[in-house]
Amino acid sequence: MVAVFVEMSMSLDGYIAGPDDSQESPLGDGGERLHEWVFDLAAWREMQGLDGGKTNRDNEIVSESIERIGAHVMGRRMFDNGDGPWGDDPFEGYWGENPPFHGPVFVLTHHPREPLEMDGGTTFHFVTDGIETALERAEAAAGDRDVRISGGADVVRQYVEAGLVDEIQLQLVPVLFGDGIRLFEHLIGEPIELERTRVVESSDVTHLRFRVIH
Amino acid sequence: MVAVFVEMSMSLDGYIAGPDDSQESPLGDGGERLHEWVFDLAAWREMQGLDGGKTNRDNEIVSESIERIGAHVMGRRMFDNGDGPWGDDPFEGYWGENPPFHGPVFVLTHHPREPLEMDGGTTFHFVTDGIETALERAEAAAGDRDVRISGGADVVRQYVEAGLVDEIQLQLVPVLFGDGIRLFEHLIGEPIELERTRVVESSDVTHLRFRVIH
Repeated sequence: MVAVFVEMSMSLDGYIAGPDDSQESPLGDGGERLHEWVFDLAAWREMQGLDGGKTNRDNEIVSESIERIGAHVMGRRMFDNGDGPWGDDPFEGYWGENPPFHGPVFVLTHHPREPLEMDGGTTFHFVTDGIETALERAEAAAGDRDVRISGGADVVRQYVEAGLVDEIQLQLVPVLFGDGIRLFEHLIGEPIELERTRVVESSDVTHLRFRVIH
Repeated sequence: MVAVFVEMSMSLDGYIAGPDDSQESPLGDGGERLHEWVFDLAAWREMQGLDGGKTNRDNEIVSESIERIGAHVMGRRMFDNGDGPWGDDPFEGYWGENPPFHGPVFVLTHHPREPLEMDGGTTFHFVTDGIETALERAEAAAGDRDVRISGGADVVRQYVEAGLVDEIQLQLVPVLFGDGIRLFEHLIGEPIELERTRVVESSDVTHLRFRVIH
């Protein structure tokens, strides 16, 4: 069975991006701080088409996550930070011609658009009929691998509230970030119980994994 | 040198109490969930004047924290949830005649009040001239032990923003709580870097300890 998981780098005070994110600054002001632990890792570099990099415990965890992903689901805002129709020269996402997904990506949007096939195996599919449909399509595309709900925070929240997420893995970054976009803004509904299934202490972050108790 | 520390039970989404807290319901709606890991522990029961209880790893950590405390600092809201003057029959705090502090407690308030000596060694001192003064008095009273900034969240935030906290210990409770009072609402100023100094996985919570890098 396909598992549906969330994986995010989060500050101790719950932020996954800085304030004032925009198409020019998708991580928001200072948001790189939350991801700097990953930039030098071999597995992350390989996804970007780069050689070399560290092969420490963080790298093993990133590799493990990359290998389990059969399909991504993301919000329109993560794709292009936009909220209007696509326009005459629609943006092709933040990641250039060879995005780091190397597989199917289902983008939630209100505006229909033809699938966008990129280099390196990434195809963006634009889904206009809601989060359940996007997840069903992602599950079908994932084969025997898992679906990552890749972001942004509002999309993660919708999937968590709908009870559609099986696992949450966080890289807890040792910083009080102060402002920006929170992974978990107020959730609607009853509290959601979790079971902690793994803790890994690496030098830069704490990897916490939880199973969602449905 | 006296260390100044914060210790709180916090949900994975950052809450330390439920919504709609009041003098009748100081933990807010459902807030007991965030503290249930502690209620059966021998060290916590002993503080309340009760016998028995569990003596597991959680209990060791709670004991260790209790033993290091020489004085507490807390906000008026934590003391009585009130914000007006004291009135003719002022509330003596949530904890009854024998509060679980067993030492000096410095309560931040705008309204002067005589010290309130309770059973079991707890004396509440009411401090009207600001957080620095309250901390200085607590440090002086703590002797060779440490000062705990005991809450609520707004008081913790003020001390953290002022750079007066040395250590933050959190019991991360595996629940997405959804709504209530956050430990770290937006902090003013630059991000605050931390160093993770300890992780202990117990069956009900994850104990995370951080040093604040000044």
